[in-house]
Amino acid sequence: MAQQKSTNITWHEGSVSRPERQQLLNQKGVTVWMTGLSASGKSTIACILEQMLLHKKKHAYRLDGDNIRHGLNKNLGFSAEDRAENIRRIGEVAKLFTDAGVITITSFISPYRKDRDAVRAGMKPGEFVEVYVKVSLEEAERRDPKGLYKKARAGEIKEFTGIDDPYEPPQQPEIVIDTEKTKPEAAAQQILAYLERHGCLKA
Amino acid sequence: MAQQKSTNITWHEGSVSRPERQQLLNQKGVTVWMTGLSASGKSTIACILEQMLLHKKKHAYRLDGDNIRHGLNKNLGFSAEDRAENIRRIGEVAKLFTDAGVITITSFISPYRKDRDAVRAGMKPGEFVEVYVKVSLEEAERRDPKGLYKKARAGEIKEFTGIDDPYEPPQQPEIVIDTEKTKPEAAAQQILAYLERHGCLKA
Repeated sequence: MAQQKSTNITWHEGSVSRPERQQLLNQKGVTVWMTGLSASGKSTIACILEQMLLHKKKHAYRLDGDNIRHGLNKNLGFSAEDRAENIRRIGEVAKLFTDAGVITITSFISPYRKDRDAVRAGMKPGEFVEVYVKVSLEEAERRDPKGLYKKARAGEIKEFTGIDDPYEPPQQPEIVIDTEKTKPEAAAQQILAYLERHGCLKA
Repeated sequence: MAQQKSTNITWHEGSVSRPERQQLLNQKGVTVWMTGLSASGKSTIACILEQMLLHKKKHAYRLDGDNIRHGLNKNLGFSAEDRAENIRRIGEVAKLFTDAGVITITSFISPYRKDRDAVRAGMKPGEFVEVYVKVSLEEAERRDPKGLYKKARAGEIKEFTGIDDPYEPPQQPEIVIDTEKTKPEAAAQQILAYLERHGCLKA
């Protein structure tokens, strides 16, 4: 007689463990943190990457200005203190999503090294994948899809990253994308290949 | 000759739509918001519900004091203003998880009606499922697993919900669980049945 599988699962006290969750979702939680100047192409690459992952039945989610600035961080301004708190909260939310097993893609300029490094420090090794979306200031100004650089040059926007506020490039990012040589789809493929190589797309 | 399926997917600009995401994940994002006195059993029920959902291959995640108070909300205290901001941020994070298609389970006392209603107001109809985890103060004090009521009665903890700070029960919660009559596992089953009935466990 065939052995009957038990249908009486015992529910344990406490949290579902990370390995158990990964097994059930067949993927590992990770944060893909894109950083770069305005108009570098972060959001475009993030959108394509999210779609590629979802089409592979991988659970991915994007955090960006649209869903953060008007919600969680709507009570923050642009002072140095508020900028730091902005990145801190985004980092904490990314950490929650990563803990939930989601492939989390953030696309924020995140210009200061110490803010990004603080997010990295809060995660486990391998969970924080920093992607430097590289573009020269000249090329970013040439693209300027929202006319922001023009306004910054005219003094209509103050403390604009690259113009009158510094951008500190990552020193040891996991991935560098030179957007003057790489198209967004190829960039997304490059990140996808990294995630695959590092075992994030399986339990 | 059999028609060949196209392997050239075109990646579109912008976000993955909610229906597209639901289709890919085979579930709908929803927030199960548990509210009730300390020692009512919120966390125990939340843990069991999360396990039951994950075993059904549904992506669920729990937000509670453990992963919120020491992270995202570690810069908040217990003043009236900070308590409101605490619930506001939790609501915003729950909204992000819900948007990501996750079945999000929150277990916080969340004693004030207006704070809970503000979270509900920020979500789409049907996305916010308020679960009143009901217990009498007498029974909560009898359980008192962490000795908190005892300390509150002794004046060692101030503004403790139920003792010297009010708890405002929901007026029209989607689900009421009387924990003096219902065991945690049955309570989790009750919530699961609700989610199933309301189509959350399929696309």
